[in-house]
Amino acid sequence: MVKAAAAAGLPLTVIGGQSGTVGGAVPSDGGIALSLERMSRILEVDRLSMTMTVEAGCILQAAQETAEAQKTLLPIDFGARGTAMIGGVIGSNAGGNRVLRWGMMRDMVLGLEVVLADGTILSSMTKMLKDNAGYAWKHLVIGSEGTLGVVTRAVLRLRPLPTSRQTAMIAVPSFGAAITAMRQFEVTLSGRLSSFEIMWNDFYDRMSGGLVHRQPRPLPTGLGYYAVVEAMGGDEECDAAQFERVLGTLIENNTVTDAVIAQSEQQRQQIWAVREDMNPGLADMRPLIAYDLAMAIVDMPVFVDRARAAMAAACPGATMLFYGHAGDGNLHVIVSRGELSDETRLIFDTAIYEAVRTVGGSIAAEHGVGISRRAFLGHTRSAGEVALMRALKAAMDPAATLNPGKIFAL
Amino acid sequence: MVKAAAAAGLPLTVIGGQSGTVGGAVPSDGGIALSLERMSRILEVDRLSMTMTVEAGCILQAAQETAEAQKTLLPIDFGARGTAMIGGVIGSNAGGNRVLRWGMMRDMVLGLEVVLADGTILSSMTKMLKDNAGYAWKHLVIGSEGTLGVVTRAVLRLRPLPTSRQTAMIAVPSFGAAITAMRQFEVTLSGRLSSFEIMWNDFYDRMSGGLVHRQPRPLPTGLGYYAVVEAMGGDEECDAAQFERVLGTLIENNTVTDAVIAQSEQQRQQIWAVREDMNPGLADMRPLIAYDLAMAIVDMPVFVDRARAAMAAACPGATMLFYGHAGDGNLHVIVSRGELSDETRLIFDTAIYEAVRTVGGSIAAEHGVGISRRAFLGHTRSAGEVALMRALKAAMDPAATLNPGKIFAL
Ligand SMILES: Cc1cc2nc3c(=O)[nH]c(=O)nc-3n(C[C@H](O)[C@H](O)[C@H](O)COP(=O)(O)OP(=O)(O)OC[C@H]3O[C@@H](n4cnc5c(N)ncnc54)[C@H](O)[C@@H]3O)c2cc1C
Ligand SMILES: Cc1cc2nc3c(=O)[nH]c(=O)nc-3n(C[C@H](O)[C@H](O)[C@H](O)COP(=O)(O)OP(=O)(O)OC[C@H]3O[C@@H](n4cnc5c(N)ncnc54)[C@H](O)[C@@H]3O)c2cc1C
Repeated sequence: MVKAAAAAGLPLTVIGGQSGTVGGAVPSDGGIALSLERMSRILEVDRLSMTMTVEAGCILQAAQETAEAQKTLLPIDFGARGTAMIGGVIGSNAGGNRVLRWGMMRDMVLGLEVVLADGTILSSMTKMLKDNAGYAWKHLVIGSEGTLGVVTRAVLRLRPLPTSRQTAMIAVPSFGAAITAMRQFEVTLSGRLSSFEIMWNDFYDRMSGGLVHRQPRPLPTGLGYYAVVEAMGGDEECDAAQFERVLGTLIENNTVTDAVIAQSEQQRQQIWAVREDMNPGLADMRPLIAYDLAMAIVDMPVFVDRARAAMAAACPGATMLFYGHAGDGNLHVIVSRGELSDETRLIFDTAIYEAVRTVGGSIAAEHGVGISRRAFLGHTRSAGEVALMRALKAAMDPAATLNPGKIFAL
Repeated sequence: MVKAAAAAGLPLTVIGGQSGTVGGAVPSDGGIALSLERMSRILEVDRLSMTMTVEAGCILQAAQETAEAQKTLLPIDFGARGTAMIGGVIGSNAGGNRVLRWGMMRDMVLGLEVVLADGTILSSMTKMLKDNAGYAWKHLVIGSEGTLGVVTRAVLRLRPLPTSRQTAMIAVPSFGAAITAMRQFEVTLSGRLSSFEIMWNDFYDRMSGGLVHRQPRPLPTGLGYYAVVEAMGGDEECDAAQFERVLGTLIENNTVTDAVIAQSEQQRQQIWAVREDMNPGLADMRPLIAYDLAMAIVDMPVFVDRARAAMAAACPGATMLFYGHAGDGNLHVIVSRGELSDETRLIFDTAIYEAVRTVGGSIAAEHGVGISRRAFLGHTRSAGEVALMRALKAAMDPAATLNPGKIFAL
């Protein structure tokens, strides 16, 4: 297919589950959309080497479940698990709720097979963690949104399946206290902390409020900041007690104001629902735009102030909610104001990305650039960086047949 | 300097501590050697964001110590810590004894500043873990051995400094048992296991024997395979008991034959000396060649058999010792046979790298390719991969002034 596209001079867009929200998997006018949904086999789980070999069309959740059935964990996990395909997850270097502990998709891809723009099959299906024999070209392809090659197969790193899990909702009076609490969990649980999802009060209020028809609020609103804290381990005896001990200390020294630990799987799901079950709480904010930004943790409060000020000036009456994967420096912002014309969208984008620019952050921590953020790439990457990216694109796809117009304009 | 070299058409080799062993930092005839030893400042430790900003000439150990003084850990660590510079560590994507838990240098570099071949300063000194706005060019530079750019500054990720440490020497009857033991430690300690250094009996015998004038052997020889196991944590109360519990179970079910846990810092150092203090044990094997190979864990025993057979055929009488970072798929081989002419070296290289080729492994897990492994790059990378690497090199350094002749011939 890639060879045929190259020969015919037709643009080719490889699509996965099309769960991305920036238009990365939208084919060009008159171009080819290549779906790998029939290349969906799980070829091997190697429990000795702790690797899994999959075809790119495999649905993420299918890979997760196969790993789990073999008592191993494929740690990458996010809301679109039932739709996203391994190829798309690699193409967008997805992260999710456990990056803090296990990293992004980039950190799980050991081996990769890619079809280059001219149809060459480049195969490096190794199970090795370390390989310093030449350039790490796989890292260039990971996260390149289908513009440098078509991922066809991959070897993924697995981890031992944790056997214990502790989940809590905590409230803290300030952003600084949230980070202090997170670091204390990190120190004491030493590698077991897998999620620390921070929520500003407005977000918590709406989300927990939207769910009150079916579950109580885990904690009262109005306490400042909230966080879902989750740890996983392999020692049921110790793990729960250790988790409670850290939390106890944090309450005693007033870092944490209030907290609840899930006592059952149902309570665990209720806590996560406040963070993840967007529909009930945000229904009356639709249409909305969701941003996935990144910045240094130290800059987050500054950014929030600037973004609020910029939005108040540019679009009075807009509602803004903040939450994110604090430990990853990944902040989400939801913005809405009743209608959502292209004009409003541009006003939102400009306000938010300008605020990101002032703190030297990234406009795309998760979803990539695609088409919709293309105009703002220069807010987050220097001219020199963009020039280098273009040079690399030209070296790997001189005729620009692979997903042209994504990331940067042609 | 880079601009001047480019203008004069002179090859430029950036050198760090020159601790690499493959000739990567050896300047070309008539070329320039650029040392960054005077750019050695530590610019910032940001404890909130958990990052450290350093200049490339900073010695690794100085960076480690500064981190530790602030109760943070820069996890990268290996024997040459007192000589290697951050720029060289990045240029060679070093690993070390704790890759199992914290990854390689690649996993610690958040921000990077690089001088490109034409003298452009490309700066992306961010503190972000996640950034999916365009191509991950930093990963192309990391591990490129000074051939794609000169690293001048970096932002490195820090971790909370562990407060507890457990170290043991264990003996296991088979390679399979070693991996079973490692996985059990991984499951139960859940993220705390930081080292699992496997040693074949011959290696253990020599190394512990060489040290008997100053310390007893931790365990008797002849038990098959040995491993240094180390875990770190933040919960003194739990951690030691948990470590002992896993080890107890492994002894009970006969996975582990014999074991000793360090009861003091002195004992800890004695255990590590058996793995690391090469001089006493290997003195009478010098001159020797040390290989740093990688392969799937499942292939290690097969490789060892093939390497032994190949060596017996090619060079009867040669001594071979095996050890490595088992969890990383990184195997070290030491080979010697009294003298070491270029001819003998070629015989050794050919036997070892041919055996690596048959298991689809890597000829360079740690030290890179440099000059001395250049001829064998095709044993470990396909023709297509090498072609892509050359295309990337041509895109970033068209006049080939940056460390020419390293990794692949001009
Ligand atoms: C509800 C929801 C929650 C999410 N939460 C998170 C989160 O927490 N963290 C996070 O990081 N992301 C998150 N995402 C984004 C997620 O990472 C992407 O949507 C997903 O990874 C894309 O996978 P896909 O198969 O749907 O790819 P698509 O959307 O089909 O494609 C995405 C990009 O990858 C390219 N691509 C597709 N297949 C291949 C291939 N075989 N080879 C090369 N390139 C290819 C496409 O060309 C396109 O540019 C979320 C998305 C949703 C819908
Ligand atoms: C005793 C010992 C033990 C070791 N153990 C391990 C181990 O366990 N794991 C492991 O992975 N490695 C190990 N190594 C190898 C180690 O990774 C390298 O020696 C080290 O990282 C190189 O650092 P350096 O500053 O000495 O670089 P040099 O040797 O000076 O240079 C190495 C390469 O990096 C390039 N380079 C240097 N500076 C820069 C810069 N500023 N920008 C771009 N490129 C640059 C050079 O051109 C050269 O190609 C060990 C080495 C020794 C001597």
